[in-house]
Amino acid sequence: MSKGALALLISGGTDNWAPDRWKLRFNQKLEDRDVALFPADATDLDAVHYAAVWQPEPGLLRTFPNLKAIFNLGAGVDAVLQDPLLPAVPLVRVADDDLTSRMTEYVVMHTLMHHRQQAYLADCQRTRVWAPRVQWPARAVRVGMLGMGVLGRQAAFALRDIGFQVAGWSKRAKSIDGIQCYAGSGELGAFLARTDILVALLPLTSETRGFLARNVFEQLANDGPLGGPVVINAGRGGLQNERDIIACLEDGTLKAVTLDVFEREPLPSDSPLWAHPGVTISPHNAADTDPDSIASYVATQILSFEAGRPLKNVVDRQRSY
Amino acid sequence: MSKGALALLISGGTDNWAPDRWKLRFNQKLEDRDVALFPADATDLDAVHYAAVWQPEPGLLRTFPNLKAIFNLGAGVDAVLQDPLLPAVPLVRVADDDLTSRMTEYVVMHTLMHHRQQAYLADCQRTRVWAPRVQWPARAVRVGMLGMGVLGRQAAFALRDIGFQVAGWSKRAKSIDGIQCYAGSGELGAFLARTDILVALLPLTSETRGFLARNVFEQLANDGPLGGPVVINAGRGGLQNERDIIACLEDGTLKAVTLDVFEREPLPSDSPLWAHPGVTISPHNAADTDPDSIASYVATQILSFEAGRPLKNVVDRQRSY
Repeated sequence: MSKGALALLISGGTDNWAPDRWKLRFNQKLEDRDVALFPADATDLDAVHYAAVWQPEPGLLRTFPNLKAIFNLGAGVDAVLQDPLLPAVPLVRVADDDLTSRMTEYVVMHTLMHHRQQAYLADCQRTRVWAPRVQWPARAVRVGMLGMGVLGRQAAFALRDIGFQVAGWSKRAKSIDGIQCYAGSGELGAFLARTDILVALLPLTSETRGFLARNVFEQLANDGPLGGPVVINAGRGGLQNERDIIACLEDGTLKAVTLDVFEREPLPSDSPLWAHPGVTISPHNAADTDPDSIASYVATQILSFEAGRPLKNVVDRQRSY
Repeated sequence: MSKGALALLISGGTDNWAPDRWKLRFNQKLEDRDVALFPADATDLDAVHYAAVWQPEPGLLRTFPNLKAIFNLGAGVDAVLQDPLLPAVPLVRVADDDLTSRMTEYVVMHTLMHHRQQAYLADCQRTRVWAPRVQWPARAVRVGMLGMGVLGRQAAFALRDIGFQVAGWSKRAKSIDGIQCYAGSGELGAFLARTDILVALLPLTSETRGFLARNVFEQLANDGPLGGPVVINAGRGGLQNERDIIACLEDGTLKAVTLDVFEREPLPSDSPLWAHPGVTISPHNAADTDPDSIASYVATQILSFEAGRPLKNVVDRQRSY
């Protein structure tokens, strides 16, 4: 009796992320099982128990009558959830240690760069000026983590260990050692009011779309050592209102922002974000995970699931994450 | 009976570091004791038991017949040790938590900036180009901490926690949890050969002067993911040979450097370091400590010493640190 087959529905991707590279990886990880690129490969639809997907075409997942689980090959499932015919089987997010660690690297580096006035110091170097400014310690800076899932929590711990005052906000109440936790819309105002550097690691849902906008920026602390609030978005581009960001940088509501994600990606070359002195841009590479790690993560989950254990990191369809 | 007086021998300093600001701080911390700026204030030389100094004029410390301890108001004691008439009483370095934490912030940020290809990404932003490169995880990068004193150890722990492979080199053998330790000249070669990013936090002594030179750079690993070795010097400018640094960047022996300290400070405006694309410069502000913290540290040590406890962080005159 053959084991449940795996269908790969992967659109786009270059180099290391190309569909055939993914097939090779899964063939190595799941040696005794059919792995098919869909719809390219001839596939017995009934035999497909699992699908691993990256931005699959809407409707295609409906093709498999015996599907047991869908694995999204990234952390954000917003694209998959837009499929109106998405089968009602468990949808699993990637939340492996590799992705989580990389996100922590990104958040720690960019928080430190704002805290340590790196933009100013780079300007000084460019103009050959030796002019150190007063530098405050990390303990004088309040970081607010918007979203306290796996990614937000690990980044929060790393920032706390470096000495920052870290608080977290999440939709539902959480209790996390050494991190001041706020929850729900009722506590959002208090969370923002004590935050000098806001780090967004929220999932993109109907509730969070456009969340990073003027009304939120205006509630951030304005009495911290940085000379104004800073926002770092390493979540999803759909979380932010880019027109508000530019306007708030212009009128001083915001001091600076670091953006890894954008309303449109790649960021259009005529976007005013590129050249604004208060903006640091990275090309959606905050947590550019290792495809080998992701393939291992998915293969491990399939084997564990078939051994009768529950799937991990299953998306709650009600919450959309 | 009056308590031992404190003489302050402080040259230069601006704003927050001005001698009279130091006097005010010590008056507050040591309320029931004479605190004198020397030689400006009228002072009973016999009553002076302690001196707090920053680059004191050579010979001046010899003036106090009953001196019991000298406190250097910074981490590096190289300037004080150049006094040929330095009294043979304990010389204490600053090693307070504030200074240590700030140095860790600096080392973590600059290590991450090299690891995460920040110079390349900043160039992309300047030219409005969306072109992410393959990014390896921290666990693929070997950081070598040259100097495993209080500062080196804490920075090493923070880098290890972020995921880097961290090793340390020190003059004498040490055993530190989770850090591969190398010691002495016999193990220096092996330490350098496994190091992608070298972080220098050595004291400046006759043995370490000019240590960061071509023969050391040529021994660093050249097979790591960064495309060549990187050096970060946050110790003392006298550790580095700047002509060698430029030459090694030019011929590819080094990929990049971050320098907080220089042979001459402020760095002369005609130095080629300013404009070299492989060089990141900061104006000796890696661990720009809080004078209030330092004054508390010195006052606490004086009170503890008078209560019969040993002084901490006393410089070993043989080692010069």
